[in-house]
Amino acid sequence: MNFKTYAEATGKNALNLAKTADKINQETGVSVGIAPQFVDIASIAQNVSIPVFAQHIDPVTHGSFTGHILPESVKEAGAVGTLINHSERRLKLADIDAAITRAQQVGLVTVICSNNSAVSAAIAALKPNMVAVEPPELIGSGISVSKAKPEVVSGTVDLVKRVNPEVVVLCGAGITTGEDVAAALKLGTEGVLVASGIVKAKDQYKALLDFAEAITKV
Amino acid sequence: MNFKTYAEATGKNALNLAKTADKINQETGVSVGIAPQFVDIASIAQNVSIPVFAQHIDPVTHGSFTGHILPESVKEAGAVGTLINHSERRLKLADIDAAITRAQQVGLVTVICSNNSAVSAAIAALKPNMVAVEPPELIGSGISVSKAKPEVVSGTVDLVKRVNPEVVVLCGAGITTGEDVAAALKLGTEGVLVASGIVKAKDQYKALLDFAEAITKV
Amino acid sequence: MNFKTYAEATGKNALNLAKTADKINQETGVSVGIAPQFVDIASIAQNVSIPVFAQHIDPVTHGSFTGHILPESVKEAGAVGTLINHSERRLKLADIDAAITRAQQVGLVTVICSNNSAVSAAIAALKPNMVAVEPPELIGSGISVSKAKPEVVSGTVDLVKRVNPEVVVLCGAGITTGEDVAAALKLGTEGVLVASGIVKAKDQYKALLDFAEAITKV
Amino acid sequence: MNFKTYAEATGKNALNLAKTADKINQETGVSVGIAPQFVDIASIAQNVSIPVFAQHIDPVTHGSFTGHILPESVKEAGAVGTLINHSERRLKLADIDAAITRAQQVGLVTVICSNNSAVSAAIAALKPNMVAVEPPELIGSGISVSKAKPEVVSGTVDLVKRVNPEVVVLCGAGITTGEDVAAALKLGTEGVLVASGIVKAKDQYKALLDFAEAITKV
Repeated sequence: MNFKTYAEATGKNALNLAKTADKINQETGVSVGIAPQFVDIASIAQNVSIPVFAQHIDPVTHGSFTGHILPESVKEAGAVGTLINHSERRLKLADIDAAITRAQQVGLVTVICSNNSAVSAAIAALKPNMVAVEPPELIGSGISVSKAKPEVVSGTVDLVKRVNPEVVVLCGAGITTGEDVAAALKLGTEGVLVASGIVKAKDQYKALLDFAEAITKV
Repeated sequence: MNFKTYAEATGKNALNLAKTADKINQETGVSVGIAPQFVDIASIAQNVSIPVFAQHIDPVTHGSFTGHILPESVKEAGAVGTLINHSERRLKLADIDAAITRAQQVGLVTVICSNNSAVSAAIAALKPNMVAVEPPELIGSGISVSKAKPEVVSGTVDLVKRVNPEVVVLCGAGITTGEDVAAALKLGTEGVLVASGIVKAKDQYKALLDFAEAITKV
Repeated sequence: MNFKTYAEATGKNALNLAKTADKINQETGVSVGIAPQFVDIASIAQNVSIPVFAQHIDPVTHGSFTGHILPESVKEAGAVGTLINHSERRLKLADIDAAITRAQQVGLVTVICSNNSAVSAAIAALKPNMVAVEPPELIGSGISVSKAKPEVVSGTVDLVKRVNPEVVVLCGAGITTGEDVAAALKLGTEGVLVASGIVKAKDQYKALLDFAEAITKV
Repeated sequence: MNFKTYAEATGKNALNLAKTADKINQETGVSVGIAPQFVDIASIAQNVSIPVFAQHIDPVTHGSFTGHILPESVKEAGAVGTLINHSERRLKLADIDAAITRAQQVGLVTVICSNNSAVSAAIAALKPNMVAVEPPELIGSGISVSKAKPEVVSGTVDLVKRVNPEVVVLCGAGITTGEDVAAALKLGTEGVLVASGIVKAKDQYKALLDFAEAITKV
């Protein structure tokens, strides 16, 4: 679950949402990874047992990189992985490659976002842990990629596995209901990326529970 | 004091360095502002009484800005201000303007970095709280801008004050000793930006004390 | 007149539009500067006597800068000036400063675009020949800045002249008729930036003539 | 042959160098593709029969893209192909994908540059015509990639062909002599990218002849 910079998922609200996801994990056994803003990583990681991800890292090392996201810093703050190349924070190709290498050096799981099947296949060649395909035009739309563009999802699974069968495929964009999640899993993905669908839900607990139940049913 | 992504100023080391600066403040009355990495802001702000700055903010609002630095988030984490446009994290002109506006909206003090006198004057027109001129070629060099390029420092003070007399002028780059600080203050600046000169000193406490004493003597 | 990448102003169409503007110049005495795409600069400059501008230059020198726009190259191709920092091609602040310096070194007139009054004032401190203020939300809208936001135009003239009285102020965005031009000149600007208003007009000659007559009447 | 922004390959010098390469073609039958600066494409394409490439294109269409390189414009100016993602002009991954698509739409041959084997394989998944691997640290060094890092070259050929056997592999960086070219071809590449090795040679004709003879000997 990507917290983005939503008001409902910043600071104290971020901690509360993380605790809700943690509770869902205890009740259903479904482990929801969460990606809060950088400044919220440490306090959240200290208070929940579900995996915490950074929303981005820079391919930098210790040194003179003011204002950049050092992989070591998010790791020490308690994150276990990181998103890279989200459609709202796209990177140059050489930097994606370098960021994956740096993440592996410090022991962060890598989830690389892509905008279509071909780009997903390209990313797979860089040996990340996971690729998450998200058609930009559906992000935040409430129209689920798994229902509106099933061919993008299944095509991505197909192309990615051909380049590198070890890469786990996720999908995202417009995922709002447990049904959307179930559709995504049927298309061959092993999980979903979700943001507004839960963060902006009237009842975040209920929305998360709906997702968790969809996953346990598969 | 800019912590950059130095190993000596990341995570636990960052907290220790912040506490040392806090101690110097209690002993000498000189308040050293510190700019740690984003993930370290919250834990440091909870443990020291000196002002904490972010190293950068993005001109974004609550919403869909994955991987960006939301001004509200660094404020809620306890920062009182932010660097913007550091030579290692330069921004587009329109984004500097927008970031200053956003910082003012959430109540963050703005310290905008520049690379020369003309750029400093341009920044002054955007009405930040402070401008910090740092010739890039001297950053991390150990050769002090206040001694090697005094005309850049005094020229910046002159041009900035002509555009906007309310803007405080700082300088940085190569500042290593209390003597460098004193030279900077004599040239009309009201403070200095320092990084490796203290962070990478064998004895950070001693290096900070040297700086603080130079300031109290003025 | 900015040709952007419009079909009506690319290749042969670019040359034809340039010749139309040249004819207007001969008939009315009004000299319309034109900014075609890079590849069209040379052939146009050889065929018209009105001033040709580049749409952008990079702050680079002779050397290893593959894919960049070398100021010397556009000069040698026949351009007399260049746009810099158009809202569709914004630059980092330090690069605007460096690009202005490079343009002056090779003898290119600089027209720096800005998005509001404060940014215009900042640019004036960098000593370009001209500043062109264009509120991004009005670009291509057909709603003229000189009528919809006269305070932005007059405020820019005021702030720019205070920082540097030698800088010429232009305005743009939504300028479609001779009336819009006249309004802009009354607000203290010395010219306008126009694109779709002429390029996409059914009769480019007639649209240009309307503009030229508005200028001669002032 | 990449002309970069070298003084020896700008404007008139660019045309002269292009004619020299054209002469070599007539004398040896070896066709050297050349990539001059944008403003020089048209005059060169009119005067030589060897293939002319752009150094870069942007993934834009006809419309409001001031200062960008429209694929249609370089095509109409006479280019038959384009470099994309040169180490001096790196693009975001999604933009490389979009630029390849745009190039194919207008009929431009695509040569995508990469910095290592893994990135080359990623690019191959995007179905360009050619991939050119160039370790950045060797570019302009005079130390040939084909001799100093043969494993990067052969590793790239291997990985690229596994992802997409139709993609032609080139290599570059430090290529200075015919011997370097021969070594590159033996490693499985089908051509080389060269810049300073010829552009900055005392006798460009002789340097080119040396290269051409190395190719004819294979």
